[in-house]
Amino acid sequence: MTPEQRAAEFDAADPLAAFRERFILPEGVIYLDGNSLGALPKATPETMQRVIGQEWGEGLIRSWNSAGWFAAAHRIGAKIAPLIGAGAQEVIACDSTSVNLFKLIAAALQMRPGRKVILSEPGNFPTDLYMIAGLKRQGLADRRLAARERLTQALDEDVALLLLTHVHYKTGQMHDMATLTRAAHEAGALVLWDLSHSTGAVPVDLRGADADFAVGCGYKYLCGGPGAPAFAFVADSHHSDLGQPLTGWFGHAAPFAFSDDYKAAPGIEQLLCGTSPVLGLAALEVGVDLIAEIGVTRLYQKSQALSEFFLACLAAHGIALECVSPPESTARGSQLSFRHPEAYAICQALIARGVIGDFRDPDVLRLGFAPAYLSFANIAAAARHLVEVLDGGEWQHEQFSQRAVVT
Amino acid sequence: MTPEQRAAEFDAADPLAAFRERFILPEGVIYLDGNSLGALPKATPETMQRVIGQEWGEGLIRSWNSAGWFAAAHRIGAKIAPLIGAGAQEVIACDSTSVNLFKLIAAALQMRPGRKVILSEPGNFPTDLYMIAGLKRQGLADRRLAARERLTQALDEDVALLLLTHVHYKTGQMHDMATLTRAAHEAGALVLWDLSHSTGAVPVDLRGADADFAVGCGYKYLCGGPGAPAFAFVADSHHSDLGQPLTGWFGHAAPFAFSDDYKAAPGIEQLLCGTSPVLGLAALEVGVDLIAEIGVTRLYQKSQALSEFFLACLAAHGIALECVSPPESTARGSQLSFRHPEAYAICQALIARGVIGDFRDPDVLRLGFAPAYLSFANIAAAARHLVEVLDGGEWQHEQFSQRAVVT
Repeated sequence: MTPEQRAAEFDAADPLAAFRERFILPEGVIYLDGNSLGALPKATPETMQRVIGQEWGEGLIRSWNSAGWFAAAHRIGAKIAPLIGAGAQEVIACDSTSVNLFKLIAAALQMRPGRKVILSEPGNFPTDLYMIAGLKRQGLADRRLAARERLTQALDEDVALLLLTHVHYKTGQMHDMATLTRAAHEAGALVLWDLSHSTGAVPVDLRGADADFAVGCGYKYLCGGPGAPAFAFVADSHHSDLGQPLTGWFGHAAPFAFSDDYKAAPGIEQLLCGTSPVLGLAALEVGVDLIAEIGVTRLYQKSQALSEFFLACLAAHGIALECVSPPESTARGSQLSFRHPEAYAICQALIARGVIGDFRDPDVLRLGFAPAYLSFANIAAAARHLVEVLDGGEWQHEQFSQRAVVT
Repeated sequence: MTPEQRAAEFDAADPLAAFRERFILPEGVIYLDGNSLGALPKATPETMQRVIGQEWGEGLIRSWNSAGWFAAAHRIGAKIAPLIGAGAQEVIACDSTSVNLFKLIAAALQMRPGRKVILSEPGNFPTDLYMIAGLKRQGLADRRLAARERLTQALDEDVALLLLTHVHYKTGQMHDMATLTRAAHEAGALVLWDLSHSTGAVPVDLRGADADFAVGCGYKYLCGGPGAPAFAFVADSHHSDLGQPLTGWFGHAAPFAFSDDYKAAPGIEQLLCGTSPVLGLAALEVGVDLIAEIGVTRLYQKSQALSEFFLACLAAHGIALECVSPPESTARGSQLSFRHPEAYAICQALIARGVIGDFRDPDVLRLGFAPAYLSFANIAAAARHLVEVLDGGEWQHEQFSQRAVVT
């Protein structure tokens, strides 16, 4: 049986096949970059037309109450919560992942006086590491990096916070959240999980792991649109002693009392800072609703099946590429990454064929398998394109080797 | 001549009259709250349809380059620059006003080692004061408040930064930017101007005043939509020694090198933190383009004419309300605020008549005169409604006195 024939069988049996119709996917494109920017839900343009034309245009300032704009940050957070094993009162949608990292790293430093070290691993997603730099610049933090196999030993009485990305952006490797959280707590440290490459693709159990903090991205698997608002999680046991420094008026206990003195809202709203970004939240909510409707269990099952099938297709074509993602599907997120000295040119040659993956410096071709809208036929076709690019030396064409900025 | 007859004459002679057609304004509404949320430009829905449907839906990740998403923050900043007397390289659109305040207050503290005091005035817009609280919580700042007539005397060798809102949100009083900036510099302090109630309504000359920093709001007179991204200004003389703490990947000199170490971009881009909010920026750009097309000089002339005419209408009706805004139009922003013990109920009664102003605790009725889309006929009608509400005791109806959250 050819890979294409097997794909047809898989697609016929795919319980998520019908959800593909709920997304806009351009003709002639196989989109393997939903881990960078998720596809557009079909319902989004209509929702945005209503929010812009009616809620803003007609309702004007009244819509903060009548259209639920004030409630949106909390409401969307509550919808994200079941995707990450959190309580509805523990998650809020706001700001960017980076800004939320700052709030929670700083909060952890305040909750662990006398400890200044933020422990992470080299090669963590850059913005996670960079946000420590800002606090170091303020004289409040020190950064310690340890390779993942030595993280536990690097936990000592100086560490205030263990900051890790659950699914690694480049390799797809997944950390054992429960074990590392326990080790950090035993060392007296708090834990902050970046769920950007997890949420909506792999199951996360923040409560089960006893996690303290988490952040995550709205524009990847949640399909919230480019630069969508991010989210933040704080375990409710920490709500009363949280001291995050971005103390803006939307996080105030009574923002419209217009008092001169800051008093934090009691719950997760204390993480809000400035005025909520209504348009971005509206688009995010459509994506979250759709991903929540599908459900993370089914998404994860299909995610594993898609990546396993891609590897099977490559094997069927007799292609051996160095895969830097874990070989067991249970140990990785919804992606496969391959190392090749010409990864950049290969990625460009694939894009020219309509197969959009991405390149990560210096030598990684990263292919994401967003389970909500990819078919097995897409996977078989993508594998065949990759084989043809490699076999035909197509990536050697000059046009594919000139680098531009890519995301 | 009745106020309505005079309004007709003014409207016939109004050089900005045609711009009213470039906005969506709901039937039966006179909108005097454009200083809180600007009206919807007619071009916005179509632009957003294109950005969502084509750029996101069809272009997907490629649009970061092909649709100019990466460049948007800087491009929009450069368009805002002439409205505030700044150079194109000195302004960037990003995050919220509150988050930008944090960046720049913290940067000022780093640039003035040994000084911890942030000087402001009581009753400044709450989020300006609240953002100092976060830095105080971090042990980095102290807050000092002085009434505006005593601000200059309160500048001493402990003050790192003078933080003021140019046009007061509640009273519309305008500070003398050049004089206060000079006084702060003479005391060795830096200055941060919040231009939220100025930009797009009154002329601002940051360079002329030798200002160090400024922030401002995208969703008021700039008509960028609810919760639109804000902007930040840093005088280019400070670009090389700026140390702001929100050191996210979009502010990195080479974000896609994915290095472990933060290195700030050399220019105004170092103020970026997380991934740019593409949808919010797209809507903001439409508003900025429109306001820039009208031009701030003409907007300010009409703004003054509108508020003067409103006062003349009240006088013609024999109404004497306590006005807490400066009597000279050159000393205030594009608003008039009136003090009345029943301001809340009066505001609600006006809203029931379709005249949308707002209430500010505890006793202020605030009416904004956004010059881009209000007619003089609107002003005459609003004044007549106010007179009828007051004369008829309409505000005493129970339905108008029960308070809900308002913005």
